[in-house]
Formats: sequence, C-alpha cells, structure tokens
Amino acid sequence: MTGNTFGKILRVTTFGESHGPALGVVVDGVIPNIELSEADIQKDMDRRKPGQSSITTQRKEEDKVEILSGVFEGKTTGTPIGIIIRNKDYRSGDYSNIKDISRPGHADFTYQNKFGIRDYRGGGRASGRETAARVAAGAIARKILNSKGIDIKAYVKEVGRIRAESIDLDEIEKNIVRCPDRKVAEMMIKKIHEVSADKDSIGGIVEVIVKGCPPGFGEPVFDKLDAMIAHALMSIGAVKAVEIGSGIACSGMRGSESNDQIVSGKFISNNAGGILGGISSGQDIIARVTVKPTPSIARKQQTIDTSGKEADIIIEGRHDPCICPRIVPVVEAMIALVILDALMMQEARKDG
Amino acid sequence: MTGNTFGKILRVTTFGESHGPALGVVVDGVIPNIELSEADIQKDMDRRKPGQSSITTQRKEEDKVEILSGVFEGKTTGTPIGIIIRNKDYRSGDYSNIKDISRPGHADFTYQNKFGIRDYRGGGRASGRETAARVAAGAIARKILNSKGIDIKAYVKEVGRIRAESIDLDEIEKNIVRCPDRKVAEMMIKKIHEVSADKDSIGGIVEVIVKGCPPGFGEPVFDKLDAMIAHALMSIGAVKAVEIGSGIACSGMRGSESNDQIVSGKFISNNAGGILGGISSGQDIIARVTVKPTPSIARKQQTIDTSGKEADIIIEGRHDPCICPRIVPVVEAMIALVILDALMMQEARKDG
Amino acid sequence: MTGNTFGKILRVTTFGESHGPALGVVVDGVIPNIELSEADIQKDMDRRKPGQSSITTQRKEEDKVEILSGVFEGKTTGTPIGIIIRNKDYRSGDYSNIKDISRPGHADFTYQNKFGIRDYRGGGRASGRETAARVAAGAIARKILNSKGIDIKAYVKEVGRIRAESIDLDEIEKNIVRCPDRKVAEMMIKKIHEVSADKDSIGGIVEVIVKGCPPGFGEPVFDKLDAMIAHALMSIGAVKAVEIGSGIACSGMRGSESNDQIVSGKFISNNAGGILGGISSGQDIIARVTVKPTPSIARKQQTIDTSGKEADIIIEGRHDPCICPRIVPVVEAMIALVILDALMMQEARKDG
Amino acid sequence: MTGNTFGKILRVTTFGESHGPALGVVVDGVIPNIELSEADIQKDMDRRKPGQSSITTQRKEEDKVEILSGVFEGKTTGTPIGIIIRNKDYRSGDYSNIKDISRPGHADFTYQNKFGIRDYRGGGRASGRETAARVAAGAIARKILNSKGIDIKAYVKEVGRIRAESIDLDEIEKNIVRCPDRKVAEMMIKKIHEVSADKDSIGGIVEVIVKGCPPGFGEPVFDKLDAMIAHALMSIGAVKAVEIGSGIACSGMRGSESNDQIVSGKFISNNAGGILGGISSGQDIIARVTVKPTPSIARKQQTIDTSGKEADIIIEGRHDPCICPRIVPVVEAMIALVILDALMMQEARKDG
Repeated sequence: MTGNTFGKILRVTTFGESHGPALGVVVDGVIPNIELSEADIQKDMDRRKPGQSSITTQRKEEDKVEILSGVFEGKTTGTPIGIIIRNKDYRSGDYSNIKDISRPGHADFTYQNKFGIRDYRGGGRASGRETAARVAAGAIARKILNSKGIDIKAYVKEVGRIRAESIDLDEIEKNIVRCPDRKVAEMMIKKIHEVSADKDSIGGIVEVIVKGCPPGFGEPVFDKLDAMIAHALMSIGAVKAVEIGSGIACSGMRGSESNDQIVSGKFISNNAGGILGGISSGQDIIARVTVKPTPSIARKQQTIDTSGKEADIIIEGRHDPCICPRIVPVVEAMIALVILDALMMQEARKDG
Repeated sequence: MTGNTFGKILRVTTFGESHGPALGVVVDGVIPNIELSEADIQKDMDRRKPGQSSITTQRKEEDKVEILSGVFEGKTTGTPIGIIIRNKDYRSGDYSNIKDISRPGHADFTYQNKFGIRDYRGGGRASGRETAARVAAGAIARKILNSKGIDIKAYVKEVGRIRAESIDLDEIEKNIVRCPDRKVAEMMIKKIHEVSADKDSIGGIVEVIVKGCPPGFGEPVFDKLDAMIAHALMSIGAVKAVEIGSGIACSGMRGSESNDQIVSGKFISNNAGGILGGISSGQDIIARVTVKPTPSIARKQQTIDTSGKEADIIIEGRHDPCICPRIVPVVEAMIALVILDALMMQEARKDG
Repeated sequence: MTGNTFGKILRVTTFGESHGPALGVVVDGVIPNIELSEADIQKDMDRRKPGQSSITTQRKEEDKVEILSGVFEGKTTGTPIGIIIRNKDYRSGDYSNIKDISRPGHADFTYQNKFGIRDYRGGGRASGRETAARVAAGAIARKILNSKGIDIKAYVKEVGRIRAESIDLDEIEKNIVRCPDRKVAEMMIKKIHEVSADKDSIGGIVEVIVKGCPPGFGEPVFDKLDAMIAHALMSIGAVKAVEIGSGIACSGMRGSESNDQIVSGKFISNNAGGILGGISSGQDIIARVTVKPTPSIARKQQTIDTSGKEADIIIEGRHDPCICPRIVPVVEAMIALVILDALMMQEARKDG
Repeated sequence: MTGNTFGKILRVTTFGESHGPALGVVVDGVIPNIELSEADIQKDMDRRKPGQSSITTQRKEEDKVEILSGVFEGKTTGTPIGIIIRNKDYRSGDYSNIKDISRPGHADFTYQNKFGIRDYRGGGRASGRETAARVAAGAIARKILNSKGIDIKAYVKEVGRIRAESIDLDEIEKNIVRCPDRKVAEMMIKKIHEVSADKDSIGGIVEVIVKGCPPGFGEPVFDKLDAMIAHALMSIGAVKAVEIGSGIACSGMRGSESNDQIVSGKFISNNAGGILGGISSGQDIIARVTVKPTPSIARKQQTIDTSGKEADIIIEGRHDPCICPRIVPVVEAMIALVILDALMMQEARKDG
C-alpha cells in the first residue's frame, strides 16, 4: 500500500537509497522449479548500470547482484527471492552543497514536504538508482516469459526531435544509444554529446514492443492491461507520458481509420497497440514513454532551500545528459512484471 | 485483484453490465460524519448520462442513483456505501446482429478470448456505461475534497485537430462539448455534427486540472501520484495516452527549459504538472488524456465472428460520435478517487 | 483495506446495515462459464435466515437474493457478481430505547468511538445480519468447489457443556440445532429452550470439516491456510476462539503423540487438522470455533450511554438464545471462500 | 498476495531460508522521523535467538541485524527499511538423512506437494527461523507503539498441563521459560528438561496482553481487530489455536455472565478481551495461542519419502523441546504489527 511493492500475484518490493549500503528487491510469487542464476540477472543489470558508455554518467558501479533466498540448487523454490546490490562508488563527501537545497526538477522539495526528512545523498530513495532493483526483478520475469515464447524489446525512438525512421530490433544493442535505426543512432549520439558539452540535458521517447503475448491477458475494468502498463511505466521517475498503440495520434483520427479491422483472419492495422477493452488481443503490444531531460545540469538554476530561502545551484558531477538509453532495460523490466502478473492472474481464473 | 476494485484506503468496487438489471458501486473507506445525499451524487451523474445533448447518444437513461447503505440520517457512517443505478432503456431485442461478431475497436474479441463467454448486449461489462458507477463514487470523493479546498475540473481540449486556445474554467459547463474556449467550442460542435453525418466518429483530448492540492501526496516508488493518475485514467475504456504536465512535449526539451525553477518563493513554470518524484508539489496538478474515436460507426467494417469466420458489420443505433464531452466527468471522478486516496495514505503515515 | 473485502483472487465485498434498505455483496473473480442461478444461492440463505425454527429469532425475513450482474443466460461471465438482499421486517420504530445506549457485549460502544456516529437500528453494520451477504458469496464458492470434489460441512458440536459424542454428517440438517448426534441434539434444543425461558443466552462450539481438499493449498508464511481460516472465522461476530485440528488440546500433548505419522501410505491420525506448515496435506481439514452467548438478553444490565452516563438496559424483542445453529452456514461460507481462493492462488503459481 | 507480506499500511515482507545465506525483511510504511538504530532491534532479536538457555536449541546464531535502507542519520525516512540477518551456524552437511523424507509434523510433505521442490536444509522457508525476520519488524513497530503509550507483553501461561497461577509481568524476563509466575516457572523448566531427556517435546500456551490501546482500532467487517490478531498469530508455525479474551471458555457461559457490564464508568469484567464487534474498546487486549509440541524429536517415527515409499526417521540434532519461550517475542512482534497497522488505518480514515 505504501508504494514500494508492485504486482498482484507476482509481487515485487524494492528498498534502498542511492548512497545507502545497498539496494534490494524481494520477488514473491515466482513459479517454482525454474532454473535461475545470478548470471541470468546480471546480464540485464549490465545494460542499466552507470558508466557503460560515453553518453552515460561516469559513476562506477558494478551493480553486482547477490541472491539471498528463493533459489536452491540452481532452481527457484516458489519462496520469495531476495536480492541485494551493494553500493560501492558513493563518494559521500560530495553532498554538502545540496544538503539543504531543492534541486529543480528533482524530488527534494516534495520528499521534504511529504516526510519532513530526506536522505539528500544523490536523491536518496528518489534516485534513478532505485531502478536497478526493478531490473533485477524484471530479469526473472523476462526469463520465464521467454520460456513461454513472449519476448519484450524496448529501444530509444526519439532524442530531442531526432526520431528513428526504421525499426530493426537486432540493431538496438549494437549502438550505445539503443536506437533501432543505425543511421539515426549516430545523430542521436552526436546530439547528446553536444547537449552535454553545453552543460544541459535532453529528453526523448522510448518505445517497447511485446511479441508473442496471447489474447486474454488483463483484468477489466480498473486493472486493464493498458492501465497496468501505464501505471508501471509512469512509475519510472523521468517519464511524463505513456501512450498505447497510436496513442496521442488517436486525437486526430476518425473511427473508420483507428478501428483495426480483420481481413482474412488478420488484423490489418494495430492502432490499438495489441489491447482491446483492456485485454490483450494477440497482436504485438506497443507502448511508448516520453522521458523528460535529466534535471541535473551544470548550469546555474534558481530555487529555494529547506527553510524556504532563495538559493542558486549548479549541479556539478556525474549525470546522464540523456537518460533514455539506460531507461530501456527499466521499461523492459516493468513491462515484463506486468505481463507475467497478468499471465498468472489469467491462469488463476481460467483453470480455477 | 481481479480488477473491479480501485484504490488503497478509499476502495471503490464497481459491478454491472450495460444491459443487465443494474450497475452498482461499493465505496469503502469513506470518512464518517460527512453529509451526503443522493442529490449530491446525481449532479455528476447527469453530466455523464446519455441523451443530454445533440452530440451524445440518444439512449435514454435517467441514471438515478439509489443509496443502499453507509449513510444514516443524512450522514456517512464510515461503513461501505452501496449504490445501484437501474438500467431502463436497454432494448434487449436489438442484439441478434452482433451476438456472434467481434465489432472492430471493441472488446468483443478479447472478452471472448479471455472468458470463453461474453454478455454481448451493448458490450456488457466492457461498455462505457460502467463508468456511471465510477462517477457515483467520484462524486462522493469530490465532495470531501471540495470541503478541504481541493477542486478538480476537466474539459475538452481538443476534438480532431481543433484545439482550445484559451482556458476559461467557467465556460466549460456552458457549452455541450465542455470546451473552456467558447469560440473553439462552436467549431468543435460543428465538427462533431459533420463527422456524425458522415457515419463516422472522431477522437480528442481531455485535460484535467487539480487546484489546491497540498504538497506531499503520492507514494514512492511504484505508486507515485502520477503513476496512480496514469493507472486511473488509462483504465477509462477509450483512453490511449496519458500525459502529466508538459507530457509528450518533454521529448523535445532541454533540462534548462523543462526544470521548473523557483524565484521569489514561486515556481515560475509548471512543466512538471504539479508532481515531482511522484509526489505533489503544491502546484496545480495537470494531466491530459487522448481519447480514441468511438469505435461504433454506421459504416461497413470487416471483422470475424466467434467461430473465426470473416464477417461484415454495420453498427446502427445510438452512439456518441465523439465521447470526449461525456468522458469529462469520468476523468474528474477518477482523479478525485486518486487524490482522496493519496490524502488518506498521507494522513495514515504522517500522524501514524 | 478498509475491511469490507475478503480474499485475494476471489474477492468478496459486502455492504449494508441490519435495518437499511438492503444488504449486498459483490463477488469478483468468479470463474466464467459456471451455471449459476438465484436458486443455487437461496438454498444456503434459507439455512441462515431468521425465523426458521423455535430456537431462532422470530424476525421474519425471506432473505431473497437478487443477482444484478455477472451472470448471463444462466452462466457466470467472469465479471463481478452483484447481489442484493432487500430488508423487509425492520420495524424501525423499535429503537428509541437503545438509540443512545451501549448494549453490553455489542459493538455500540466501539463503533461510536471509532466513527463518531453509528446506525443504532439493530446494530447497523455490526449486526449478525451482515453475514447474509457472506452466505450468498459462499454459496457460489461452494458450488464451484463441489464440482471439483471438495465438500464442506459444519455442525454444532457443543452447546453450553453439552457436546456431540458422535459425528453423523447426514444427521446435521435433520434437527434444528444442526448437531451431528441425534440424541445430543435433543438435549441441546431442550437446553436452549430453558436458557431462553430464563431470559438468557448460551454459547457453544461449531466444527467444520472439509473433505476432498488436495494437498498444496495455502500460501506460506503469513497467509498459511490455517491463518486464512483463523482470519475468516474470527471475523464472524460472535466467535471468540479458532482451533485447527487438535487445537487447544495440543498444549497437553507430547510431540510423539501429536505428530501424525504415516503408516502404509496413510496418516494414522489427524492432530494437524489437515494442514502442515500452513499448506493442506490432503487429509480432512478440521477447524472449530467457540461462539459466545448472544449478547442481547432480556435481563437488566448496567452500562453507559453515548454521553458516558450510567444507564440500565433490558433488551426485549427477537433474539437468538444460541446463535450456533445459524452460524453453521456462515462458517461453511467463510471456509468455502478461503479454500476456493487458495485453489486459485495455487493454479496461478503452478501453471503460471 | 503470495503470502510473504503482512499488513495494510504498515507492510512487512520477509524472505530467506533457514540454511540459506541470510534472512531478511522489508518494513514499508514506517512513520518518518523516528529515531531507530540496530540496537533497538537487536534487543528483541536476542530474546528470540537460539542457544539462549538450557531449554532451547543449541544452534548458535547471533542473529545480528544489518539495516540496509530507510534510516538516515539515525532516523527513519519514511522509505522502506530493509534488514538482513546473515545465517552463520548452518552446518550444511547434516541433511543427507532427511533430504528425501517427510518429517512427521513438519511442512516437508506439503511444500513438496505445493511447489514440486523444497529446500530440505532445516525446513528451508518453513523453518521457525523465518520468525527472526518478523521479530526485527516487530521491534520497530513496538518502539513506535511504546512512544504512544501502548505496551505489549507476552508470556508462557502453560507448559503441558502446568499453568501459571499468577501474572506478574515483571517476572517474565527473569526466568528462562518466560513464565509470569516464578514458582510455576521452575516447575515448567523441570518439566521441559524431563521431556527433553525422554527424547520428546511438549506443547503449551502463550498469552499476550496489550495495555494502553485506545478504543476505535480495527476495521469491520472482515478485518476486525480480533480477525487480524487471529490471522497474525495463526501464521506462526506451531500455533494450533487462537483465543480472544475468555476464548474457548465462552462455550460454557451464559450471556448474563459473558457480557462485560459497565458500572461507574468502568467495565467490570473483560471476557471480550478488549475487543467488541472487532474494534478495540480501550480495555486490555488479551489473546492466547496454543503451541503444539516441537515436531522434531529424537525418537523413531514412521513416515514416507519423496517417492511415497515408507521410511523411518530419527531426528537427531539441536531442537527446542518446548518452543513456547522463544515464541513469546514472535507473538509480541506479530501483535505489534497488527496494532500499529490498525492505528494507521484509523488515522487515515479519521482525519482523512
């Protein structure tokens, strides 16, 4: 209820602060007798970890996962899987200048107002670093989904106004910006370097596609599959919009255009994004998130301190000029959790 | 868990089909000793009900609420408020032509796949009619929020490509399309009549603004206030995108532009839409939904029947050519449920 | 969260006051395509309803159920089943003498303290009448369980110090006290008549046995099957103790005695009551509740009124001198909800 | 949902196996700005840990807690508190003889049936060792409750048929059996030594009393305070019965005897155990659990192995001949979690 747990049957609870001793996650409800090792999880962790390329923050963290429970002799037992990720490079001395100041675009002001106290080191619990725990959980879900023929791929569709023109899923992991269009990837990387040199940051769009999801997943009426996806994706810190299928473009459409007709047994379009009435239709599920520019920038900004007094701030240090490439595995993780949970709900009711 | 309940402390459970005997809702967790009558609820029901103007469906329903419990001598008792709304004009004879056919853009296909059975009369549970129950619940939440100085207003911002240029909240209920820009409202109404005459439908955008919400509402990390809003709004059948604050526009922004700086004690912009790190900041909360064109159109469309055989369908009858004006009170209701629930969560933890 | 909903996947929400317009229940998560009629439910309602014999209250209620949703053409659709039961014989004029007085053993005092307001008519929400809604939900669960070979039977094991010596399940519904021992039943009935003539009431013990439950139901560690049973049964108003298997007798036992050994492939005893480590073992599940004497008695008792002033009260009217026979179907209903929910959880995880 | 989380607003999730790397717990929803250190928690851990006296198992574990999150500069921050307890003395070589055998009275048989796999080392997740994580969480809840004047004390009331005759709360921690009656404590200890020498074990009764709980806690109708207590206490592995107030004795009472009348502003008895209609009345809350004899005994017992074949087993090694003294802090922990959660629910609704 207090917001650190996600899911119905597959229940994921994360804990940990950016500069505390460790991040952690408990994944409850995992199907027993699945082969699982730390290596299975580490793969995705490495795609999210800082310092992986010239366009990410240079903070150095291995993000090494340690499984504490729920796996025995290499297999899941059906009991909760507890995982921790120790923080290494936390340089705790750095924070005196931001201790009392609300950084623009960050949660400092609101955490202080909500709790009357906050761990000011690197954003504490509100740091994007929390998503490491999500990726660990998502890696477990993805492995199970893959074994059932369900595949999830996210990629960077837009950086600034630069948009991928073609979608080649095999291209994604071949460039550091995780764009499925090789040519556009280069333009995006160039753009990010420029923005970074300009002590600024830039937003973008990440798209995710789920292949192989059978029809029937999702719970009407409040927990429609698209509602759960929207919840999951909007819970990622930097996300400011979630679209399903044609999304925002539907505003300008007519019904005769947006309805996906079926001809010769096949949907001839996918404006719905694979979800009708909140339930998967068997088409590819397509969702998109708009990611705001990283709020940490090395320019002078005006704000207030904890006492309400005016203050200026320049945020030096190690930050991602565009967070999109590192959000890709987080989006995949959140979608995996939603889809596997929906699958389990459907099993429960169908065969009940 | 099975999707017909929304909220954590304020728990709303709806039931009922479009052409069954009644719709209903149970609102659990309502603060005791609040004055409440059926008239308080009916006001909002009348804004959502069919047949209210020339641009809505002509189905005739009074949508009269009956309170069955939880109110005693004119006041809430803290026990669950059960409400039913009897269906009147359901013309059950009409449905032989759609009984076995999956209407494009509707949930027929997916409900059939999920449950192996469906109430085909008017979409059954998947009908927009279900939202009547949400509006009843939302009216209770809004009354309580109003008493605390929190005010929620939604309006139609766009129909097709026609967009409101000014926002005058007092204008909204003065025109049948619920647009806050009187001049643009006329253009929108004209557009809807044209589309309707063309046996087609059209999409649009509804925006909602919450004034007076104090800082501190929302639960990090998965149940951020914006994540709950996205969940709530995406659970409305026709919604295909949810934006918070500057939303999708953030993709093209730089951090120096999107960060809301504070000067002389005030935020000088509101790109965040009143939410930072998933917690309300005290600024106006702003969200937007993109609404797809009503899928029921009187043109011939290609689809399949329950047995998978190809079929044509023309959906005659009474349908909204643009559902936006009637979604306005539904959006307000869902937002009211999210905000009041967040308020109660915050009380629980703060004073615990 | 606010206590009027029970279950994880099979979610039951009740509403309604003893002397309000109606009681109601929403049963969400019911497996689709199950044949279900009001008659299926009415059967169990009639076993709980008042006025059924000389040893129950003489309040006259038909407790006629009306299904409002979730059933279409005689079958469940997988959408929530809404049911209401209109109150008829509520004689609202009777309550002036208890309006401001806290009846000993009743919830008047605590509801007033919790909510600052209470519906004083017949105990309002705290009335045993609320259990009618539970029995309606339970009847649906029992029908589904029966189709899977799981059978639930409760009976009155003790009234006062009079205890059934033999357990003949076929005898239960043949006597008005629902005792499985015909001879002892007569003694119990005589006892209840005596107590009633004496303007007093008496407690007892109800036992329930579940046959045919396969091994593997129940969720470790907090939601063990016995923990869920204890929760479910203790939530019935008059219950003051819950035992599983040998229950309280275990205190005097040695391990060599209480352990259920397996000889020739069979458990040779059932001290565990069919549950080991919180998970069903395949043996009969056995639970027992101790029921306190009905607090409404026609003797003068000392108490206070709402203002805290001393007051005497004599509770005239129609009350059960021993509530055990009418609690029997309520116990069965609650157990059915627990078992079916556990079954669905197990399906979700096993086949996930 | 999958059973490893307890509570509504205060959410406690445990993980870990008896002989895995560590046990852990995440406590979400803790009120911010409370002073909290590892020492606050360790105090209760030491009362539960093995090897503390001659009547407990001689397994040596320090049960040292490490706080990983949610506490900053000595104060809670309102974010989830993650705690781990490393296992030290797990002697993993010991288990070849029980690897495939279902120990009588243990969860081996049912875990194997539920999950198709089990961690056989020391009972894995089903081990009483899991309660260490609960005690850590409970210690936090107790500290908060104490600051509000609510005090929880549990003690051993009965071992075998030997029952405490007087209740001196100051006596409890002065003897190793945690009995509030000094004289009877000696008899209990003697009894436990006898039973142990006889290669057997013995059951008992633990009682808990909550002082200072204000009226109004508990959520009708399913989540009554006594229902939550029953759930919480029955979820402790060895517990086979839960009583509230006079509990099982109510069966033999009359209403005129069991009703707690109020004279001169005070309840003159407490048969209700401080709970009326599921809501606290302001009297002492009293609950009792019956604890079965430890199933691990060094006598030959008959059972089956994983393949269903008959097998004999003698469980050598380190086991508690009577688990009651070590269950005392676990009972306190579970009660503390229930009461604090109820307090927060009441705050949410009252001031909402």
